[in-house]
Amino acid sequence: MNSIILSIGDELTLGQNIDTNSAWLSRQLAAAGCDVLAHLTVPDNQRSIEQAIYECGNRTDFLIITGGIGPTADDLTRQALSVVMRQELVLDDLWLKRLEDFFKSRNRDMPESNKIQAMIPMGATLIDNVNGTAAGIDATLTFDLPVPGHAPRKHTCRVFVMPGVPKEMMAMFTRDVLPPIAKAASGAIILSKSLHTFGVGESHIAEKLGDLMNRGKNPSVGTTVSAGIVTLRINSRFPTREEAQKNLNQTVAACRAAVGDLIYGDDDQTLQQAVADLLKQFGKTIATAESCTGGLLAKMLTDTAGSSNYFQTGFITYANEAKYQRLGISMEVINLNGAVSEIVAAAMATNAKRLAKTDYALSITGIAGPDGGSEAKPVGTVFISLAHESGVTTKQFHFPGDRDWVRDRSAKMALTMLRYYLLGKPTPF
Amino acid sequence: MNSIILSIGDELTLGQNIDTNSAWLSRQLAAAGCDVLAHLTVPDNQRSIEQAIYECGNRTDFLIITGGIGPTADDLTRQALSVVMRQELVLDDLWLKRLEDFFKSRNRDMPESNKIQAMIPMGATLIDNVNGTAAGIDATLTFDLPVPGHAPRKHTCRVFVMPGVPKEMMAMFTRDVLPPIAKAASGAIILSKSLHTFGVGESHIAEKLGDLMNRGKNPSVGTTVSAGIVTLRINSRFPTREEAQKNLNQTVAACRAAVGDLIYGDDDQTLQQAVADLLKQFGKTIATAESCTGGLLAKMLTDTAGSSNYFQTGFITYANEAKYQRLGISMEVINLNGAVSEIVAAAMATNAKRLAKTDYALSITGIAGPDGGSEAKPVGTVFISLAHESGVTTKQFHFPGDRDWVRDRSAKMALTMLRYYLLGKPTPF
Repeated sequence: MNSIILSIGDELTLGQNIDTNSAWLSRQLAAAGCDVLAHLTVPDNQRSIEQAIYECGNRTDFLIITGGIGPTADDLTRQALSVVMRQELVLDDLWLKRLEDFFKSRNRDMPESNKIQAMIPMGATLIDNVNGTAAGIDATLTFDLPVPGHAPRKHTCRVFVMPGVPKEMMAMFTRDVLPPIAKAASGAIILSKSLHTFGVGESHIAEKLGDLMNRGKNPSVGTTVSAGIVTLRINSRFPTREEAQKNLNQTVAACRAAVGDLIYGDDDQTLQQAVADLLKQFGKTIATAESCTGGLLAKMLTDTAGSSNYFQTGFITYANEAKYQRLGISMEVINLNGAVSEIVAAAMATNAKRLAKTDYALSITGIAGPDGGSEAKPVGTVFISLAHESGVTTKQFHFPGDRDWVRDRSAKMALTMLRYYLLGKPTPF
Repeated sequence: MNSIILSIGDELTLGQNIDTNSAWLSRQLAAAGCDVLAHLTVPDNQRSIEQAIYECGNRTDFLIITGGIGPTADDLTRQALSVVMRQELVLDDLWLKRLEDFFKSRNRDMPESNKIQAMIPMGATLIDNVNGTAAGIDATLTFDLPVPGHAPRKHTCRVFVMPGVPKEMMAMFTRDVLPPIAKAASGAIILSKSLHTFGVGESHIAEKLGDLMNRGKNPSVGTTVSAGIVTLRINSRFPTREEAQKNLNQTVAACRAAVGDLIYGDDDQTLQQAVADLLKQFGKTIATAESCTGGLLAKMLTDTAGSSNYFQTGFITYANEAKYQRLGISMEVINLNGAVSEIVAAAMATNAKRLAKTDYALSITGIAGPDGGSEAKPVGTVFISLAHESGVTTKQFHFPGDRDWVRDRSAKMALTMLRYYLLGKPTPF
């Protein structure tokens, strides 16, 4: 069983709204064992909608349409469906009554334009909308698909039309659309798991995964990158939930074995959450001393509830003078080595740890750009130090990208250095 | 001139990621006078991608493709394009060199799998990627479209393939894809302007706008909300760029008159950029003292290049002890009033200003949640102080939402208080 999701609306093709419905619907359909072949979005133009319904309908089992069933002149989905079905629109007396009652209960007269919302193509069925005036439509399209050298093949596609308003759509889909699809779907269930890594590039992760990423494997393993986080996405597709879960677990275990400690968490877990969990687990405290990141690292360390367990204070020493005043680093050392140097980074972490009386301290000093770079220290040069029980460890990095990127990667790398230290493992970079 | 936007990726059709690229691209294309006929999304399946390229290509002037050009086995867009073009993939020596240099500069060997990123269909042109290893592809498809009773009609479609990573895609589109499209596009021009506000709700802004928001107006005015920022979107659609620009300017001026100082910037301008500009304009410096926001305010103040002009240091005093140690606020005052109180907020700002020797200081202390709330001071209670030439101004707020929201709104409100102070105006909240 497969499906196509068709979204209707000028606000989408003009880019004024981001389509969130299709992603939500895709997750529901996948979990019910119904493949999503495509998402398609077309504007409020009747010919475009007709063409989309026709072309999608003849290649899928279920066509899920959202939008274009409001009361205004630019709502044209029901008219387009009626043309493709070659069935005229007829008035549903019960829904007309519901509409009139709806307006009466708000002490308003029903605008004449709203009457269109009680009309559906003959032969279609109306779907109740418990949250609004736009009823849904449940219809069946039949096609004679040409087969070279043979008689045409009959194809039927069940079409569900729902409102574009997410809340109304979700309620309608869950109550009246998903059950018949789940029943018809031949049982194949898709279960998914995401594993997140930080520290090396996508191609290095792919090399570690090797054959696990081969095309056509089930469960399948793919990678995506977002803000430096390389995520493994594992999708397991089997006739029963038990098989899907068992195979998912096996492949997740194989991925974990292949990629190792670079994986910091799964699904909704963030890097800062993973580090917070380790700090709490070991009962350790941390302070920060930041130059180019300007507070971002401390912000990330306090993103999670309960961060007061391990974080009490941070130093933002953006200017050289502040590194002296706040952290007691002599101006001589700064002027001799430059503020962006191993020795200053190490002093920032060491002094922050001593002043804050914590178990650890992380420091970051670098050139975030766009200005301030030199041949010896180009934009993206960053020193990160971790002061710990037995001294201080400093690493130099060269992060690509613009100011935002350099700051973001620097803070994530600092968290990752701390994470490896807490795990008792050497960093792989 | 028209276009179709084609997005490639299992993570999209499985609903694991929301497609934000298509909306962004649509806005750019509309502004250039290029109609968007549809958005289409298909999974990482070579046959599906081939079919999508073929079917979209034969009905549009420009096919804008994002995704599927990474180095891994599930990146299949270049292979699919090569099949539709009937041109084999050939190695681009210059880009291979760029890739090798990229890895060399990071002291890493280039994985063999990355070599595919230097291959494009013969006859296509490579598009530079200044932010990553995935070069884009610029190609032309030609079709013989059947015309009943006549000779086939020649149709050509220019195809641009770009990375799916938004930042890389946006940079590539702006630099190398949009210019040829804008040149070719003719006809109705849509020019847009966004005006951003912070401090009051969407319905308050709508009330101030009044008739300007009426349906059917051209230019049209709508509002959207994102992360507390209420944005006015003004779209002006006219046959010529001059008319579109003139009418846009008039409506923008009317909106500015109606909404006033709540508007802090337009289009890509951020609240922190607006505040930075004012600080630089007046030659003033600022320090921060943060409790619940944990560094977020300082991070925002240093988001913009050149922030060293006005920002030197910040105090993150998350724990009470840190408020005493770092800012010299007596434990007696803290214990008597609570860390989340007007007096502690005022002391944080006053002492930060004195210690940092700045013109101003902003402080934030509040209950971000989910824990720590009480009946007298529920989650979302936040005190923000601004220390200035003539003393200190403190305001109490109650922000709705979860931890992230409360922290985000607190930092934005602190920036907004400073903004109104620098403008010499009283705050409207």
